[in-house]
Amino acid sequence: MIFILKNGFSESELIEKLKHISASYRVVDIYGTRVVIAWPDNIVSNIDDPSIKAKIMPRKPYQLTSNEFKEKTIININGVEIGGKRIAIVAGPCAVESEEQIVEIAKAVKRAGAHMLRGGAFKPRTSPYSFQGLGEEGLKMLKKASEITGLPIVTEIMDVRDIDVINRYADMIQIGARNSQNFTLLREVGKLRKPVLLKRGFGMTVEEWILAAEYILLEGNGDVVLCERGIRTFEKSTRFTLDIAGFAVAKTMTHLPIAVDPSHPAGRRDIVEPLALAAIAAGADMLIIEVHINPEKALSDSEQQLDVKAFENIMKKAKAVAEAIGRDI
Amino acid sequence: MIFILKNGFSESELIEKLKHISASYRVVDIYGTRVVIAWPDNIVSNIDDPSIKAKIMPRKPYQLTSNEFKEKTIININGVEIGGKRIAIVAGPCAVESEEQIVEIAKAVKRAGAHMLRGGAFKPRTSPYSFQGLGEEGLKMLKKASEITGLPIVTEIMDVRDIDVINRYADMIQIGARNSQNFTLLREVGKLRKPVLLKRGFGMTVEEWILAAEYILLEGNGDVVLCERGIRTFEKSTRFTLDIAGFAVAKTMTHLPIAVDPSHPAGRRDIVEPLALAAIAAGADMLIIEVHINPEKALSDSEQQLDVKAFENIMKKAKAVAEAIGRDI
Amino acid sequence: MIFILKNGFSESELIEKLKHISASYRVVDIYGTRVVIAWPDNIVSNIDDPSIKAKIMPRKPYQLTSNEFKEKTIININGVEIGGKRIAIVAGPCAVESEEQIVEIAKAVKRAGAHMLRGGAFKPRTSPYSFQGLGEEGLKMLKKASEITGLPIVTEIMDVRDIDVINRYADMIQIGARNSQNFTLLREVGKLRKPVLLKRGFGMTVEEWILAAEYILLEGNGDVVLCERGIRTFEKSTRFTLDIAGFAVAKTMTHLPIAVDPSHPAGRRDIVEPLALAAIAAGADMLIIEVHINPEKALSDSEQQLDVKAFENIMKKAKAVAEAIGRDI
Amino acid sequence: MIFILKNGFSESELIEKLKHISASYRVVDIYGTRVVIAWPDNIVSNIDDPSIKAKIMPRKPYQLTSNEFKEKTIININGVEIGGKRIAIVAGPCAVESEEQIVEIAKAVKRAGAHMLRGGAFKPRTSPYSFQGLGEEGLKMLKKASEITGLPIVTEIMDVRDIDVINRYADMIQIGARNSQNFTLLREVGKLRKPVLLKRGFGMTVEEWILAAEYILLEGNGDVVLCERGIRTFEKSTRFTLDIAGFAVAKTMTHLPIAVDPSHPAGRRDIVEPLALAAIAAGADMLIIEVHINPEKALSDSEQQLDVKAFENIMKKAKAVAEAIGRDI
Ligand SMILES: C=C(OP(=O)(O)O)C(=O)O
Ligand SMILES: C=C(OP(=O)(O)O)C(=O)O
Ligand SMILES: C=C(OP(=O)(O)O)C(=O)O
Ligand SMILES: C=C(OP(=O)(O)O)C(=O)O
Ligand SMILES: [Mn+2]
Ligand SMILES: [Mn+2]
Ligand SMILES: [Mn+2]
Ligand SMILES: [Mn+2]
Repeated sequence: MIFILKNGFSESELIEKLKHISASYRVVDIYGTRVVIAWPDNIVSNIDDPSIKAKIMPRKPYQLTSNEFKEKTIININGVEIGGKRIAIVAGPCAVESEEQIVEIAKAVKRAGAHMLRGGAFKPRTSPYSFQGLGEEGLKMLKKASEITGLPIVTEIMDVRDIDVINRYADMIQIGARNSQNFTLLREVGKLRKPVLLKRGFGMTVEEWILAAEYILLEGNGDVVLCERGIRTFEKSTRFTLDIAGFAVAKTMTHLPIAVDPSHPAGRRDIVEPLALAAIAAGADMLIIEVHINPEKALSDSEQQLDVKAFENIMKKAKAVAEAIGRDI
Repeated sequence: MIFILKNGFSESELIEKLKHISASYRVVDIYGTRVVIAWPDNIVSNIDDPSIKAKIMPRKPYQLTSNEFKEKTIININGVEIGGKRIAIVAGPCAVESEEQIVEIAKAVKRAGAHMLRGGAFKPRTSPYSFQGLGEEGLKMLKKASEITGLPIVTEIMDVRDIDVINRYADMIQIGARNSQNFTLLREVGKLRKPVLLKRGFGMTVEEWILAAEYILLEGNGDVVLCERGIRTFEKSTRFTLDIAGFAVAKTMTHLPIAVDPSHPAGRRDIVEPLALAAIAAGADMLIIEVHINPEKALSDSEQQLDVKAFENIMKKAKAVAEAIGRDI
Repeated sequence: MIFILKNGFSESELIEKLKHISASYRVVDIYGTRVVIAWPDNIVSNIDDPSIKAKIMPRKPYQLTSNEFKEKTIININGVEIGGKRIAIVAGPCAVESEEQIVEIAKAVKRAGAHMLRGGAFKPRTSPYSFQGLGEEGLKMLKKASEITGLPIVTEIMDVRDIDVINRYADMIQIGARNSQNFTLLREVGKLRKPVLLKRGFGMTVEEWILAAEYILLEGNGDVVLCERGIRTFEKSTRFTLDIAGFAVAKTMTHLPIAVDPSHPAGRRDIVEPLALAAIAAGADMLIIEVHINPEKALSDSEQQLDVKAFENIMKKAKAVAEAIGRDI
Repeated sequence: MIFILKNGFSESELIEKLKHISASYRVVDIYGTRVVIAWPDNIVSNIDDPSIKAKIMPRKPYQLTSNEFKEKTIININGVEIGGKRIAIVAGPCAVESEEQIVEIAKAVKRAGAHMLRGGAFKPRTSPYSFQGLGEEGLKMLKKASEITGLPIVTEIMDVRDIDVINRYADMIQIGARNSQNFTLLREVGKLRKPVLLKRGFGMTVEEWILAAEYILLEGNGDVVLCERGIRTFEKSTRFTLDIAGFAVAKTMTHLPIAVDPSHPAGRRDIVEPLALAAIAAGADMLIIEVHINPEKALSDSEQQLDVKAFENIMKKAKAVAEAIGRDI
């Protein structure tokens, strides 16, 4: 149950009442309001207090992420809007490999119309013998590429102990599929005031994904974009199965914007375009696509990264599809 | 291995040679040519004969369905093309319930721009206690609706013993997901010269789906449309998971046109539109959508059938998306 | 709702009453009683009639298969009991390949302690270019092997048109995974009075599996054994994922005996033994295992068939595990 | 490629050679030997050096976990062996809820024959509004229960920052399914010299699971037990699908012992026993089972926790099954 507080009122009496009935609660400042979340629903629903402006009882286990709590959220990342009419396109390599590589790619995707730059410096690799990313050095290169092109950057965090270093460089922090239920990491990014891109775990239900976002919002960070990137199924002709319906359902549940990553589910270059266009047609607010100057030589995800030409082609078609459904790129 | 025969030459000598090396073979008249398929590849690849115009050795287990065998197939159903520039829209109820119902729906979907009419008379129901369809009576009603509106009809066959009766009424014969590996049924529809809509089984890989079509082509019927309709996954917010990438991959493997059914994977009305638009954006050649005059009262799949208004909305947006990718509806 | 009828009473008045309220119904002679199944539940539950001995309203969509309808079923196949204390072991090749092959295997598995012989004459192959089975010739060879060894035989039916020929040779009729929702085939074997082995489809839920059996029982054939044989999942180190919990759950739902096929889910010889022993420990009433004299040369499923030695080893361990849980082999 | 070093020889020359050819490498002290792992294989395979006692090139992406590297590992936890003839039984509540609760349960499971105690103090809950565990207070209670009963304890770590506090109390550290690819956490527990229980992620392949263990071994900690606990599939009658074949395959790949958790896949009390017995029959080295004094009142996983009576029943049957396959409990 969400209690929205009146401006200038203290919640202390309300908290007393909640304590008195042994309810659990959290006070959160989010989206410019102060709210008290209290549970379980059955014991808190009768609580009243002069500090309460409104009560909302979402019919689902999630609260702050529920679209019963608020209207569609629009996030602004250095001028790039996510969740508005314009669809945000994020592009860049799987991993930062060198300053030259990331700067060159940044310039190329910018020229092709991308709004933001992606690139991993801490890479969650299945094998410890695979390239693990350049760490803080990679973040610096990413920053350089950002400064040269003006593109804001999104990059992945893998460890709570890296929160400060990542926060220093990133404009948006990515939580990867493998950390989507790393709850202590979710809480830490929730304590920042920086946009978060939350990948759906490949074994995660839509409801679990939204509840993972709830962990972040509950710490006061409301700038979360949910990113569908494919789930594990029996079909093996692609690396994962992009769940278009899954994110369409999520849009009926939450006010948060939705991103789609067509690269990782495809796992092969030739299927990225149809997935990207399908995502736009189905209502994605943002696309995040892996692009490399020289995909065959990439140190990770070489099979799926697009060359610049292929990315430019997608941009053209994506624009047309976006306009067909009344949006923009 | 496919041997394409010269016009006017007999294959009898070739057959002798194949018998001599104990190869397996089939002579098939398909797409206006006579071909001999022989296997296993390793023993037949050196065979030569004056009757042979060309040899094709697809690098995959499927042969006649392979796009190494031929260019993209376009199927013509009473003037409706599937696989060409125009995307064919098929609409109608899950099941034929009465003459009034099907005629009314046929008129409505025609008015909204549909090119063909769907409706089941033999329904594959999970429970024997559910409505099983009206049988031949249903086919007659469907025919009536077709005559009134001019829309060709597609309807499902469930039993090889119904082949004649279905063939008499249907313009296109549907093989349902649950019969997608009913190999004797596949062979029987292969013996007809009538277009087939082959649903992908919900536990079937893309390769198995194409091999199921191979059963039909091997009997000489090349007019097969593959229909993606969702696979079983752990995600339960929708009935099945529409595998957009699966059909995109299929398009890289086969020359057959691809249809998408957005209704059954959604299992809920509100997700049909995003799936339909995604399918078009990703390159579907045909959509098949469940539409009912009164969805709440439908005798089957009530949750997912659209009312006419919702279908009209999809038609408008679908047209725009089709045009955005250089196609038409 | 199930109405169990009194001996010697006619159901005609009851039927009248059901017609009067527009209920659906079926009269079935099964397990030595005459019952009337009527639905939907809400309109039939108040019906009364002197012919009614008892009313049962299972709380699930399935009725005759429900263990609310009857105690655990024991099936007798020429002296081999399935569902009793003794666990029935069925062994034999994937496919009958020659008289010599099947006779030799039959003798070997009998010697090792098997109670029944398996072997396919009509094979549901993914590809039309794979070995399709010997058809009726294969059935004759199977019969020969049965006569020599005294082992009853189970063999697969794929086509309703083969019902007579299969019925002539088989002691138990197998419905394969790919035909598990071929509802007209289910009905036809339901009309026979011969035991049926119903494989679970690899994309089928437990409830759907039981409802498939319901189709058979509703025609009056109560001798159905449910066979778990693995479902499709993302894990690819085995061919399918054996769902031990799935059949354990089925045992809490139905009175029908449960078989387990450890060969097809393994898809590799070295994993058949642990799956077989696990199945017994978890309560399987029957095992069906692929055994071949010369697995490497087998015309189908060569990777997973056991040689006789490996089967003998399983038999020894299986016996020990069976006794550990108070059963027998 | 693994280079096993001779006792008393320095690897410095070998390292020089590896640097010279730009190979990657790691020096690891594990299982009482010093080894150098170097990669990629193709460039390091020709390296030679007087310090090398033996070279091993596993044919798989994993190295130290491969059973090509060493014989089956047996782990000793305060006298409890895992991986030997005796099967280790770990039991206890999902979460520590109070000192009284954990002490009472510890006594009860000890009396029933359990060898170790489980209980979570940091709980990975899908929803932030669910009980999150008692934290360090919970660890203290667990310790108390351990001291009273003499049972070693296994408990979950969720955050790298808790490594010291967990290490102080736990005899074995659990990595939960949701953190199975939290690679920085894996590395940290790898730096300890304390046994680790590594749960398989519910969306994780067998190979990924073994590679996750490789992260731990590569830091020098060889005392890892792999724990199968069910994967996500379409079947919904249980919470997850226990992949018996998956762990049987793992046993053919690695020397590490295998545990099975039958409680979480079941998600319901009545299916825990068949899964537990199946796991033993299929070769598990350890079982970890949720047991609660008062399951209905449990603060987490209430549906699946067993009462003491049910656990005692399992112990009796488990013992019999273990003996049937030549093992012990
Ligand atoms: C690793 C990545 O993605 P995911 O976490 O979705 O696998 C990535 O975006 O580089
Ligand atoms: C039953 C139908 O579809 P499917 O076979 O795909 O389930 C249908 O189209 O009515
Ligand atoms: C084909 C067979 O099995 P399934 O139908 O389970 O695949 C078989 O038993 O030979
Ligand atoms: C949460 C637990 O398990 P898992 O990580 O396997 O879900 C547990 O053992 O308490
Ligand atoms: Mn990547
Ligand atoms: Mn339908
Ligand atoms: Mn087989
Ligand atoms: Mn638990």
